[in-house]
Parts: sequence; C-alpha cells; structure tokens
Amino acid sequence: MFKKVCIIGCGLIGSSIARAIKKNNLSVKIVSSNRSDTTNKKVIKLNIVNESSSDTKKMVKESDLIIIATPLSSYKSLIFKIKNSLKNGAILTDVGSVKEKVISLIEKNIPKNVSWISSHPIAGTEESGPEAGFSELFKDRWCIITPSSQAKKRDIKLLKNFWKKIGSRVDIMDAKQHDYILSITSHIPHLIAYNIVNTTLDINEKKKQEIVKYSAGGLRDFTRIAASNPIMWRDIFIQNRENASIMIDKFIENLRDLKKAIKNKNEKKLEKIFTKTKKIRKEIVKAGQDIGKANFGRK
Amino acid sequence: MFKKVCIIGCGLIGSSIARAIKKNNLSVKIVSSNRSDTTNKKVIKLNIVNESSSDTKKMVKESDLIIIATPLSSYKSLIFKIKNSLKNGAILTDVGSVKEKVISLIEKNIPKNVSWISSHPIAGTEESGPEAGFSELFKDRWCIITPSSQAKKRDIKLLKNFWKKIGSRVDIMDAKQHDYILSITSHIPHLIAYNIVNTTLDINEKKKQEIVKYSAGGLRDFTRIAASNPIMWRDIFIQNRENASIMIDKFIENLRDLKKAIKNKNEKKLEKIFTKTKKIRKEIVKAGQDIGKANFGRK
Repeated sequence: MFKKVCIIGCGLIGSSIARAIKKNNLSVKIVSSNRSDTTNKKVIKLNIVNESSSDTKKMVKESDLIIIATPLSSYKSLIFKIKNSLKNGAILTDVGSVKEKVISLIEKNIPKNVSWISSHPIAGTEESGPEAGFSELFKDRWCIITPSSQAKKRDIKLLKNFWKKIGSRVDIMDAKQHDYILSITSHIPHLIAYNIVNTTLDINEKKKQEIVKYSAGGLRDFTRIAASNPIMWRDIFIQNRENASIMIDKFIENLRDLKKAIKNKNEKKLEKIFTKTKKIRKEIVKAGQDIGKANFGRK
Repeated sequence: MFKKVCIIGCGLIGSSIARAIKKNNLSVKIVSSNRSDTTNKKVIKLNIVNESSSDTKKMVKESDLIIIATPLSSYKSLIFKIKNSLKNGAILTDVGSVKEKVISLIEKNIPKNVSWISSHPIAGTEESGPEAGFSELFKDRWCIITPSSQAKKRDIKLLKNFWKKIGSRVDIMDAKQHDYILSITSHIPHLIAYNIVNTTLDINEKKKQEIVKYSAGGLRDFTRIAASNPIMWRDIFIQNRENASIMIDKFIENLRDLKKAIKNKNEKKLEKIFTKTKKIRKEIVKAGQDIGKANFGRK
C-alpha cells in the first residue's frame, strides 16, 4: 500500500497503528519520530518500527503517509517544522480527538500538493506509551475522516482503505459536526469521570483507603476513564472548549434537577429518568460498541 | 449452618445468595418470597430455591435466617407484615445500600429475641432479576455489616461467617459512616452516570443513532452503570438524600472550576488534576477491587 509510513509520536495509538501496519503488510518501511530518545530506542527494540529518531524532518522525508499521533498542543510547532520536508504527493493525517481548529491551522501551512486528511480512530484504553499498544486496537471501531478542502479524492479513498485494512469502519464527517458529537460521546464523559474522581479525593484524602476498598460499588468504573493520558485530555478539552462549555452547563442543569427530585422524594420523576437511561445500553451492545457481558465480563 | 433460610425478593442479589447457599451447603432448606407469581414459579423452575410463594408470612415462618433483598421503599410495609411470624431467635438481615433510616425503622418494630443485623454486600451488575444472579457474585467483594443495638454477639459472628462462606470479606461499620462512605464510592457515581446518559439523550434524541455509534469514546462505560435497576436506585438516592445533596454540591463546584480552567486555557491546572486522578486507579487494582486489564479486558 505504501513504501514508507512515518508515525510522529509512538504512544498507545501511534504504536498500535505501527503494529497494525506491520501485521497487515501495509508498508515496506515504518519509521517514527519521538522527542525522547528513550522512546526512539524502545520502539526499535520492541520491533514496532524500522527506524526512529527525534529528527522529525529526517523521518518525514520520502514518506508516503505521515501520521501525527502527538497531543493537539504540539501540532502548531510540528507543522512548521515538517512542512518543507513533506514529499510531493504525500498524505498527511493525524489521530486527534478535536478537528475544527487544527484542520484550518494545518491547511494554511502545508504545500498544495500534500493531501491533508484528518482522522479520528475512536479507540483507546486508559494506558499510555508504546508498550500499551496492540495491533487489534482498531478492530470494529469507528474511524472518522475529515478531509481538508485541498485533499485529493484519490488520497481520501486510499486513506479510507488504510483504516479499513487495520480493522476500522470508516465514516466521513465535517469538523464542526465531529467536534459536537464527540464532545457528547467522549469529551464530556471523560471530563465528568475526572471530576468525580477529583471530587472524591479532594474531600477525602484521609479516607482514601476506605474509598479504594469499597470502590466496586460504582466508582471503580470512573477511575478507569480518569486514568487516561492527562496531557492528551488537557489539550482536547481546551481545543473543544466551546462545545464542552455548553455541555457542562446542560449537565449541571440536569443534575440540579435530579437533586431537587431527590430532595422532594419525587419517586415518579426519578424512576422515569432511570428507566429511560437503561434502554440506551442495549442499543450500544446491539451496535457492537460494547460487549454484552454483565460487568464488562469482570470476575 | 442453618435449617431454613428465607430470601425475600429473589432478584439479582437475592438469587445470587440463594445459589451461593446451595453451592456451599449452608442451609437444609432455602425458600423465597416474591410478589409476582411468575417469579415464584421461575425460581423453583430454575432450581434456585426449594419453595417460593407470595405469602411472605408463610415463607418466613421457622426460618433461622431471613434476608430482605427488596428495594428500600418496601421495608416499612414488609416489616409490619412479617414481624409476628419471625421465629424466636432468628437472624434478620438485608442487603440494602443505605442504612441509617432503615436500621432504626426495623429496630423499633421487631420482637426482642430476633437479631436484626443489617448487611450490605458491595457487589452487583447492571442486570436485574433471578436469571441474572450467579453464585460467585460475592467472591472477593466486601460485605459491610451494621448490627442493630439489640443484636446478639453470637448472631453477629454467625452472620459474618455466613458472608465469608459465600466468598465475601467482611467489615463492621456504623450506619452513619456507611452511608457517608457509600455515597462517595457508589451512590454519587451512579447518580452522575444516570445524569450524563440522561443529558446526552435529552438534547439529542434525534442524534441518538450517532451517539450509539461513537459511544466507545467513553460514554459506553457510563451507560453500563446507568442500566442498573431503576427502582433500587431511586430508593437509594431518596434514603441517602442528605449525603447525596452535599456531594452533588461539591461535584458541581468542582465541575465549574474545571470549566473555568478550560475556558482560560489553564493547562497547568488541568494537567495537575488529571494526573492526580490517574493514580487512584492503580491503588484500586492493587487492592483487588478491579481487574488490571486495559479497558476491563474488553476486546
């Protein structure tokens, strides 16, 4: 499919893509660029890529596909660094969770003959770093593609096929719609998880041992999400702050409403809400977006 | 261990206890009482109990151990119904998630020679009903015991052993402390999960299909918790409303603070909070309260 693929940032997502490329024979050569030399050495030792260096320009050169898999806050300096090293006719993509602001930033700054097509594979775990990656991470997960205006049709098709070959289902969506939908399905759930774990620890540093002990009552599920990469999520919330802000306000309004119903012992109202939320689970399992086993199959 | 055990309410928890009693040979006879005759027939057909009837008084008679496993709102009428049928010297327990109000209610209304010792096994899944139960549900989970003032020491010891024999680790805690700790580790996480799923659906009934499709970005974890038994949780929030109320206020205060940090692009503050919350996960896994596999081991 490609002669050379360059992955910038070999963390959980980047290293999973590299592994999937290797497993499916999608490129003759895979290289990566990481700021830390420890990581560059590690990804070669783990046999994830053929070559890796902090010299991003050098790694990018002659690559047919370049995948940015670093936190959103790094995009600006990164694009200025690599723009003159991009191969004529290359495809540039990323795996970022917010689109609107970064798409125009990159579009303004790259050569005309490079197809900039943003990607967002909706996949991940609470773990970080190249050791945490695995080739099956994208299997049966959705990948949303948001092409920039100057991207060639042929390249969009090629990138779609690339994601399909590593197991994803692909949708095309514009940036505005993407950022709105993902704020609901991903960003706000993460923010809420961080907030509940933070609130819990905040008022109860002394009681932490008891909280850990009895966390199986519900809290433990939130701690999984709140264990995700802090830098990545910091950048996501800041980049999607307008949508996040609106959703936070709606969330607080509804929570106040629930508080009132609890205070007034409004059994009917509570029952109605809790019955409504129950149904959505079945649809998610039916859509193949979660496993149907009770407790996620935990023993 | 016992000659006759009576389980009032053979749902997820009640039927799991019945199965565990049978598996571990802890009683000669196991009976249950359910309001619905469909359920009474089902639990006999499924071989979960020896006898089952909507005639609660009859089922309770001659029982050495009576376990209330119905929603908290049913306790009041239930205790008036059974109090004169309780065997002299019997142990009465429950599996409820809130203690303070129900303990005094029952204490005031039962014969002196019955040991009323409240229990709370911190175990469960998002599923409901007798088919959903399994004998291993309590394995390695904590069970908190809150004896009433008139409970005999010998009976407290016996009930502790009972929970241990079906796999639990047992702690003794007073009602006030129990309700406070559990509001943090269980009640508020459930309320927040219900609220986020409700907020999501509320504003986006039209976009529901897309929300289901991309739910793997985080939302799906919340939908699991928000699929729990609506009646049970309605009662829990109402019974523990004072603690819930305080925690909701703290949660909203912190969420407002996060919103402000996002709006002001306060990278340092966000990073600090998200790093702090990351640590607790490891401690929960270390304490054996969750599995350590990424994504709960979901594929």
